[in-house]
Amino acid sequence: MEYTRALAELIEEFNKFPSVGPKSAQRMAFALLRKSTEQVEHFAEIIKKAKRDIKYCRSCFNLSSEELCEICTNTLRSERLVCVIAEVKDLIAIEKTREYRGKYHVLGGLISPLDGISSADLNISALIDRLKMMDGEIELILAISPSTEGEATMLFLKKLLAPLNTESRSILITRLAYGLPLGSDLDYADELTIVKALEARVSI
Amino acid sequence: MEYTRALAELIEEFNKFPSVGPKSAQRMAFALLRKSTEQVEHFAEIIKKAKRDIKYCRSCFNLSSEELCEICTNTLRSERLVCVIAEVKDLIAIEKTREYRGKYHVLGGLISPLDGISSADLNISALIDRLKMMDGEIELILAISPSTEGEATMLFLKKLLAPLNTESRSILITRLAYGLPLGSDLDYADELTIVKALEARVSI
Repeated sequence: MEYTRALAELIEEFNKFPSVGPKSAQRMAFALLRKSTEQVEHFAEIIKKAKRDIKYCRSCFNLSSEELCEICTNTLRSERLVCVIAEVKDLIAIEKTREYRGKYHVLGGLISPLDGISSADLNISALIDRLKMMDGEIELILAISPSTEGEATMLFLKKLLAPLNTESRSILITRLAYGLPLGSDLDYADELTIVKALEARVSI
Repeated sequence: MEYTRALAELIEEFNKFPSVGPKSAQRMAFALLRKSTEQVEHFAEIIKKAKRDIKYCRSCFNLSSEELCEICTNTLRSERLVCVIAEVKDLIAIEKTREYRGKYHVLGGLISPLDGISSADLNISALIDRLKMMDGEIELILAISPSTEGEATMLFLKKLLAPLNTESRSILITRLAYGLPLGSDLDYADELTIVKALEARVSI
């Protein structure tokens, strides 16, 4: 059947996306066919426009429409405070707090030998180049999820960046605090989180 | 930020699909941006092609590239056996069995007052027109999920189609058997399924 090839191709394209299984892909394909021709043309246009207009910042690998992103060119933000994150979506999550006034560095993933992602696949050499151009006191916040891959990446970065401390440059590496999420119930927290929260207890 | 508008539009478009929440939409948008420009152009092309090439059959509302679909024009399939289904994906599921040799009628949904879907939104009048053009013995298999909406639709069809039985035309309306799915464990089946399976027990 001729239509089935066009349909199969469509389902296959949706299926290529992360967290979209064959059933969801089929559901999305049928939802697409229910749209009007104008809506489908609009969707195709949005896709191409996003790919055309959105580039990566040359310095921090944030999304950007220019060579350098708006955060890197913002002189009100401290150069000496760099938040290292796995993905742009983490940057968006931190920006939503409106509390952070430093810069960022997007790694583009985490070290994960099981998924074939090594340190060479991440934007780590660019981070080293960035740090080498700076001197004085610098703080690097590793805002990375405390997963196996996250812990491995943080450990790797800590070891790799240690030699960058010279007489004229000192790099303080920090990570986010572990503990109970706000508004959570103690008896719903996993044991490891409780252990971490106990260890990091503070006087009141 | 200029890029964020293109990104927000892209996420919003993915979010419009069924079973794609805001987080999945964001994940899909970032996955799209990781593709090469050629891959993105290809994806946009597939989408437009599918919408352009795939039409609905004038008779049974199956997907088709012609006025009438391949199943409707297949003279080896019985005209007198019509399987009524909610969506084209149900047709595909039944066709995969390679056991069914009749025709189909795709309703395009199920009656669901909560979702604002009434019988007028479904391809029911076209089904009546089809049946009115036939005489002799006809079997209508309602291959519809036994959900609240499915049961309501089946009951509605049963009542609506009863007057179509005339001296020259007799319509037998059947539904799929309820019971334990093959290869399932009895203690994992829900009570209602067990009740239905008990009621429909057969001698061996």
